[in-house]
Amino acid sequence: MMHTGWVGMGLLLLLLLLGAAAEAALLLPGRPDRNDFAGMARWLVSGNSWGVLSTVSVHLQGMPFGNIASFSDGPPGNSTGTPYFYLTKLDPTAYDLSKNPRCSLSLSEEPLGTCGNKDAENPSCAKLTLSGQVEEIQTDKERGFAAEALFSKHPEMRSWPAHHNFRFYKFIIEDIFLIDWFGGPKPLTVSDYYWNNHISTFLLDGLAQ
Amino acid sequence: MMHTGWVGMGLLLLLLLLGAAAEAALLLPGRPDRNDFAGMARWLVSGNSWGVLSTVSVHLQGMPFGNIASFSDGPPGNSTGTPYFYLTKLDPTAYDLSKNPRCSLSLSEEPLGTCGNKDAENPSCAKLTLSGQVEEIQTDKERGFAAEALFSKHPEMRSWPAHHNFRFYKFIIEDIFLIDWFGGPKPLTVSDYYWNNHISTFLLDGLAQ
Repeated sequence: MMHTGWVGMGLLLLLLLLGAAAEAALLLPGRPDRNDFAGMARWLVSGNSWGVLSTVSVHLQGMPFGNIASFSDGPPGNSTGTPYFYLTKLDPTAYDLSKNPRCSLSLSEEPLGTCGNKDAENPSCAKLTLSGQVEEIQTDKERGFAAEALFSKHPEMRSWPAHHNFRFYKFIIEDIFLIDWFGGPKPLTVSDYYWNNHISTFLLDGLAQ
Repeated sequence: MMHTGWVGMGLLLLLLLLGAAAEAALLLPGRPDRNDFAGMARWLVSGNSWGVLSTVSVHLQGMPFGNIASFSDGPPGNSTGTPYFYLTKLDPTAYDLSKNPRCSLSLSEEPLGTCGNKDAENPSCAKLTLSGQVEEIQTDKERGFAAEALFSKHPEMRSWPAHHNFRFYKFIIEDIFLIDWFGGPKPLTVSDYYWNNHISTFLLDGLAQ
């Protein structure tokens, strides 16, 4: 019986340690609970500064063509969930979009530094793909907001050469593919993604500071 | 004249400092010279452990769909230039590939930590897109090599659940899009990319240690 008692105490200690480890994991700066799908998606969009924008390629005859793109969904403290871009048609991506706006934007949790030793393909290292259309912004008001969103997070963009004709673009989200845990893609509608504005802005304010 | 002498000495000192800074930049671990296009592309492939694999989506009716994928082009000391993957058709990417193998793999220099303060969209922070086809590996010999390549860089893959039917895949490169400096995409053929095997293996040995 003595022996069983020691095993029991060992198990209890192990559970306490695991509990402490789990709590520590939850205290990582700003990372939402994995069951808060909208919060997780918004956190990935606000926290990342670049991703891969995949278009239907003109120069490769319709192949899916992914390219590195910097983006921002708002200035610090005003995360909107909508990714804005600053692109030039000298680059194939913006040229592709001018012919076919359908595209996707893919992000990983890896660059945020919160995946620890987990492999980037491990479902618990979150990954997000927004699918929809990217279009050039048409109004001065929204262009002004996009400039504020992008230049606050990407200050060097201000000085990018004028003769390259950079323009402001925005992502119109139609579908959201989120994996932040085992068991396949998580259910997340576009309206849920935008409805959680207050939660994500709160989370992101914490992250930006 | 005294004044001119001081200015001259100041300029000399400045040149010496700039020279030292340039040399320091060249000494970053393994980063090839920006004019060594094959070396740069091979360095990005060997140094990165994940990228975005973009397919023609089945579940989104033909949209370009980018997804996070871990890969390896060889075990440490034997970088081949060919990305290998470990994928399951439970995930849309491998399923898409079974219907249409045309795809691209996009990588940034950002995760390697050598872009400093440069924006990910800045042409001098290198970016690479391999376009072509990804196919399931058919021979035991190549499957063995892919396993060695992947499991050495992604050890947790060994224990991924067997009932998910992970399979080994390889990238057949048909086109290479590389930007590692201003002035648009750099000229780099697939044969040049593979011809420089010895250089890149050398560079990568240094990086892996």
